[in-house]
Amino acid sequence: MSDLARRVLKGDRIAISKTISAIENREYNWVELLRDLFSYTGHAFVIGITGPPGTGKSSLVDRLAKVFRSKGSKVAILAVDPTSPVSGGAILGDRVRMIDHSLDSGVYIRSMASRGDEGGLSRAARNAIRVLDAAGNDLVIAETVGIGQAEVEIVQVADLVVVVLMPELGDEVQAIKAGLMEIGDIFVVNKSDLPGADKVIYNLQTILSSRGVWKQVAIKVSAKTGEGIEDLVSFIEKYRSGYVGSEAAKRRKLKSLSEELIRNVGFVLSENAEYVLRSRQELNEVVSKVANRQLDPESATKLLLKSLSPQELELDNDQGKERGKKRKATR
Amino acid sequence: MSDLARRVLKGDRIAISKTISAIENREYNWVELLRDLFSYTGHAFVIGITGPPGTGKSSLVDRLAKVFRSKGSKVAILAVDPTSPVSGGAILGDRVRMIDHSLDSGVYIRSMASRGDEGGLSRAARNAIRVLDAAGNDLVIAETVGIGQAEVEIVQVADLVVVVLMPELGDEVQAIKAGLMEIGDIFVVNKSDLPGADKVIYNLQTILSSRGVWKQVAIKVSAKTGEGIEDLVSFIEKYRSGYVGSEAAKRRKLKSLSEELIRNVGFVLSENAEYVLRSRQELNEVVSKVANRQLDPESATKLLLKSLSPQELELDNDQGKERGKKRKATR
Repeated sequence: MSDLARRVLKGDRIAISKTISAIENREYNWVELLRDLFSYTGHAFVIGITGPPGTGKSSLVDRLAKVFRSKGSKVAILAVDPTSPVSGGAILGDRVRMIDHSLDSGVYIRSMASRGDEGGLSRAARNAIRVLDAAGNDLVIAETVGIGQAEVEIVQVADLVVVVLMPELGDEVQAIKAGLMEIGDIFVVNKSDLPGADKVIYNLQTILSSRGVWKQVAIKVSAKTGEGIEDLVSFIEKYRSGYVGSEAAKRRKLKSLSEELIRNVGFVLSENAEYVLRSRQELNEVVSKVANRQLDPESATKLLLKSLSPQELELDNDQGKERGKKRKATR
Repeated sequence: MSDLARRVLKGDRIAISKTISAIENREYNWVELLRDLFSYTGHAFVIGITGPPGTGKSSLVDRLAKVFRSKGSKVAILAVDPTSPVSGGAILGDRVRMIDHSLDSGVYIRSMASRGDEGGLSRAARNAIRVLDAAGNDLVIAETVGIGQAEVEIVQVADLVVVVLMPELGDEVQAIKAGLMEIGDIFVVNKSDLPGADKVIYNLQTILSSRGVWKQVAIKVSAKTGEGIEDLVSFIEKYRSGYVGSEAAKRRKLKSLSEELIRNVGFVLSENAEYVLRSRQELNEVVSKVANRQLDPESATKLLLKSLSPQELELDNDQGKERGKKRKATR
């Protein structure tokens, strides 16, 4: 085991930060680091917090971290910022609010942002949660905006998913909400001082009770005033005590791992294909033909697909790892 | 050429709908339909309209379609609904507002929603735009919420991207906005009756003028009252007359096609890998090993990757097409 991994296991904050950065940037040692740490995971309870933009997830995470901290838990927060699809430059402004935690050595906070590559972010975030787990945290809170597939993938790694909603969501946000209804274990209506909070709770309870099987709950909270936070914490603890070690937990873990591995394979294949195609003159020739309408886009896709070799996709040897290094270096 | 494709070229609305559905569901004839129609594309001017949730894009598209229609243009609207990542059940409620268009045979409206598969949606939407182009529309307006990579991919196929913002956007939405700044040609501040509209315009103009190169503009509009809509239309027409046939247009088209083909290849690879892995007992065995911490997730990914054959990924023969059919049928 590397010295860095050893320091992570002891909870060394600098080592944790370095390791997560290595994973994020896929530095030469990232796979080895993960391999070293992975066998030490499984201690932390992972809470995924998600919801539409603007529902006050960060303030809520703030509140929760403080309560769990006061109960003696070692808490880590992983804030995965909205994917800024082109620039990759997510604004981490509201994280500044969390600075007061950082003075408390029992709360570790880390932000991760997309670099225009959602699949990569999701993979890195899931591995960062593992690092925070191996580092001895009792609770890892992963927070993300629930708007895209990648974000949902991130919270699906969690033992418990809290979906944060608020009154007065517009039509489009309602559609986002519809997608989130299926992944939440606990639904929170934040900003409960706004008009309409009771109606949202009523609607949620109607939807949830019509399902029957799952013991999902809807709670009204205000991260601003603290209203309902204790209720939320006790629901989380109740859920946790029934969940840890249960058959449902095992099934959920297997399902989540299975989806993760499938997505990882797809991600590596896509990335290798992209790297190979971009380095070839053939791409431009095919693109020109499509632009001149001598070739349609789907036939062109097939043509490019067939031009790839198993070696280039890392199907059957170890060149890929070396190429990965070179690729990184030339960025 | 199939009879269906021939009817699309004549602008037959039922044929257009059938063809887009065939593409969306990847029915047995979708590639052939696209191949038939592709050589007839290139007539339509494609406007992509995007922006954070709740900024009133649909109402604006409504207004624009009416103005262009009144000028005699044949207009098609493709509304790509928010990706509901798990359920796939996007709420198309606000499309109901558009019903008044549907009585006008000069405006064709089509909604597409994700089925939990963003890459697939993006690919289908880009091909649907081609169908609407081949069908003889002068203007195709593709509308989508600008929150994820897939949505941005959709509008990047456009000749002109209009980014719709509004005053009073929260922190997280600001981050989304940051990503959209780089893809917009025209920036619109909708809901100009809300306080702060002038400030948003001022900020936008400051950012845009600091760039210099692009002739991007920021316009204040109200889709509700109609304020600024004529200005927006005249900016669009000015842009269009400078753009069509220009070197910039050619470069943009080549770039967009190149990115599309690369993504298509990655998408087909990921999908084939997923199909193959899910059908194998080996996946469960590897997942169990990871769950028991005998194997780490990245080594497991590599193991699964190496288990795939070139044939299974459609690298070197035509079995894939047949498998695609079977796959569809067993869903």
